[in-house]
Amino acid sequence: MIKPLGDRVVIEVVAGDMKTASGIVLPDSAKEKPQEGKVLAVGTGKVLDNGQRVALDVKVGDKVIFSKYAGTEVKAQGQDYLIVSERDILAIVE
Amino acid sequence: MIKPLGDRVVIEVVAGDMKTASGIVLPDSAKEKPQEGKVLAVGTGKVLDNGQRVALDVKVGDKVIFSKYAGTEVKAQGQDYLIVSERDILAIVE
Amino acid sequence: MIKPLGDRVVIEVVAGDMKTASGIVLPDSAKEKPQEGKVLAVGTGKVLDNGQRVALDVKVGDKVIFSKYAGTEVKAQGQDYLIVSERDILAIVE
Amino acid sequence: MIKPLGDRVVIEVVAGDMKTASGIVLPDSAKEKPQEGKVLAVGTGKVLDNGQRVALDVKVGDKVIFSKYAGTEVKAQGQDYLIVSERDILAIVE
Amino acid sequence: MIKPLGDRVVIEVVAGDMKTASGIVLPDSAKEKPQEGKVLAVGTGKVLDNGQRVALDVKVGDKVIFSKYAGTEVKAQGQDYLIVSERDILAIVE
Amino acid sequence: MIKPLGDRVVIEVVAGDMKTASGIVLPDSAKEKPQEGKVLAVGTGKVLDNGQRVALDVKVGDKVIFSKYAGTEVKAQGQDYLIVSERDILAIVE
Amino acid sequence: MIKPLGDRVVIEVVAGDMKTASGIVLPDSAKEKPQEGKVLAVGTGKVLDNGQRVALDVKVGDKVIFSKYAGTEVKAQGQDYLIVSERDILAIVE
Repeated sequence: MIKPLGDRVVIEVVAGDMKTASGIVLPDSAKEKPQEGKVLAVGTGKVLDNGQRVALDVKVGDKVIFSKYAGTEVKAQGQDYLIVSERDILAIVE
Repeated sequence: MIKPLGDRVVIEVVAGDMKTASGIVLPDSAKEKPQEGKVLAVGTGKVLDNGQRVALDVKVGDKVIFSKYAGTEVKAQGQDYLIVSERDILAIVE
Repeated sequence: MIKPLGDRVVIEVVAGDMKTASGIVLPDSAKEKPQEGKVLAVGTGKVLDNGQRVALDVKVGDKVIFSKYAGTEVKAQGQDYLIVSERDILAIVE
Repeated sequence: MIKPLGDRVVIEVVAGDMKTASGIVLPDSAKEKPQEGKVLAVGTGKVLDNGQRVALDVKVGDKVIFSKYAGTEVKAQGQDYLIVSERDILAIVE
Repeated sequence: MIKPLGDRVVIEVVAGDMKTASGIVLPDSAKEKPQEGKVLAVGTGKVLDNGQRVALDVKVGDKVIFSKYAGTEVKAQGQDYLIVSERDILAIVE
Repeated sequence: MIKPLGDRVVIEVVAGDMKTASGIVLPDSAKEKPQEGKVLAVGTGKVLDNGQRVALDVKVGDKVIFSKYAGTEVKAQGQDYLIVSERDILAIVE
Repeated sequence: MIKPLGDRVVIEVVAGDMKTASGIVLPDSAKEKPQEGKVLAVGTGKVLDNGQRVALDVKVGDKVIFSKYAGTEVKAQGQDYLIVSERDILAIVE
């Protein structure tokens, strides 16, 4: 298992067709490109300048939209995972 | 539904004619270009360095002017949405 | 009405002749170019890192000098307005 | 009258000969070029991240040396004034 | 022995085949390239702006994934070590 | 007299031969070039984000080594002075 | 004697052969290049934003590895010294 550090999140990328069950279609020609995925693991949170650790807003199982060019790709058992900072996650799709 | 994270806001972009009911016309030749839209969803706010979370100044239903080149475009049911940081929203049109 | 957010200010730009009633002439060849205008609306202030909101130093009706290339232009009823951050306002002309 | 905002200062620039009564000559070939002037007005000070406002170290009447390329030029009654941030003022000449 | 300072970590790099016992394969064509290794030593932590020292999240023996281009290479007894900041470590592999 | 502001220091530059009484020779071919001088005047210190003013570590009369390209040159009575920030002073030579 | 300011450290550079008694060999072809040396003097520490001064983690006599291109070179009695910020010191070699 991959346990991300700090405010990082491990995401299972939604490959192929960008039209999801939620009916949201992510455009491939527009502005900054987002991408969808599912949260597999979350870090313990970022430490603020006052020493306080802030838990993440996303949790395991969340469907999220994130900036397409963010993060670092990791491959396991033929599946692409992405490790991104929570600040690169734009929204949760419910 | 799209639930934005942190200080992000989901906006329904006002397409076509830039002259709105409020009588404000947004120029297309001038300086930095703004754009109008309606707030559909707001995040839970940004976490400050002291750990305090600051609620957003805009709320669902607000008509807002935002910087035209800000944010990430998301498409759903043929409609364009934009996810922007509140800091890219210039003003509320009342 | 336009209600600016945070530390932003809506300014009615003084067009045409740059020589104002206050006798201050703004040069058009020198260094960084300033411009004059009248404050029409002010935001509720910027939130500091300690969560405190700081009210603006300018108020509605103030004549101000601001950096010419700052802000975002908005047009309404044939009049140009400018939305600028208070940090781009250099001085109040009394 | 021009009332500068925050940590800004209005300076009456010493034009022409750079040799002043204080006997200090500012070179025109060396490194970063400074310039002399007299403080005409000072702002109410910068607001720190803890909300505290810090009064300026310079006061009206001070002769100051400032970085030549700093600030914004304003002209009034044929006289050049400069609006600069206090952080661009290097020293007071006594 | 090498005792890293602050938030730095000494890593024994996993050379050769990137497929590890954990079954995670690190791609060599994708985006930002990560790399695996084992933590040999950790610093005493970074000092925050409030003077508090924050212990590291990784400990000696952890298998970690880090950004491939991060850090400084050190060679000892024919083995490559890497000294990296903890912020360049993406995740712990368990 | 020149009274520097904040964390600035007025330095009498040691011209000509870089070998000083302390036996330290400053190289003119190496890396970042330092230079020696004597402190003539110091500012009242920098104001921190918590409003506290921090007195300088150097005092009048100290022989200091500073980065050669730092600061602003001021000339008085045929002598070169330099106004530099204390952060550009590397060390005191005792 | 050279007394470094703030978080600076004076280092006696280990010249010539990079293989030291500790058996650590520093490569000259790899990535960011480190270098070894001995600490001769340390500053009184950096002042944090809350006014607290943080003592250095290295002490006189420590053998340290630092980034090769960091710091300012100073020559005394035919010997090269380097003045570097503690943040450019990667590790202590024990």
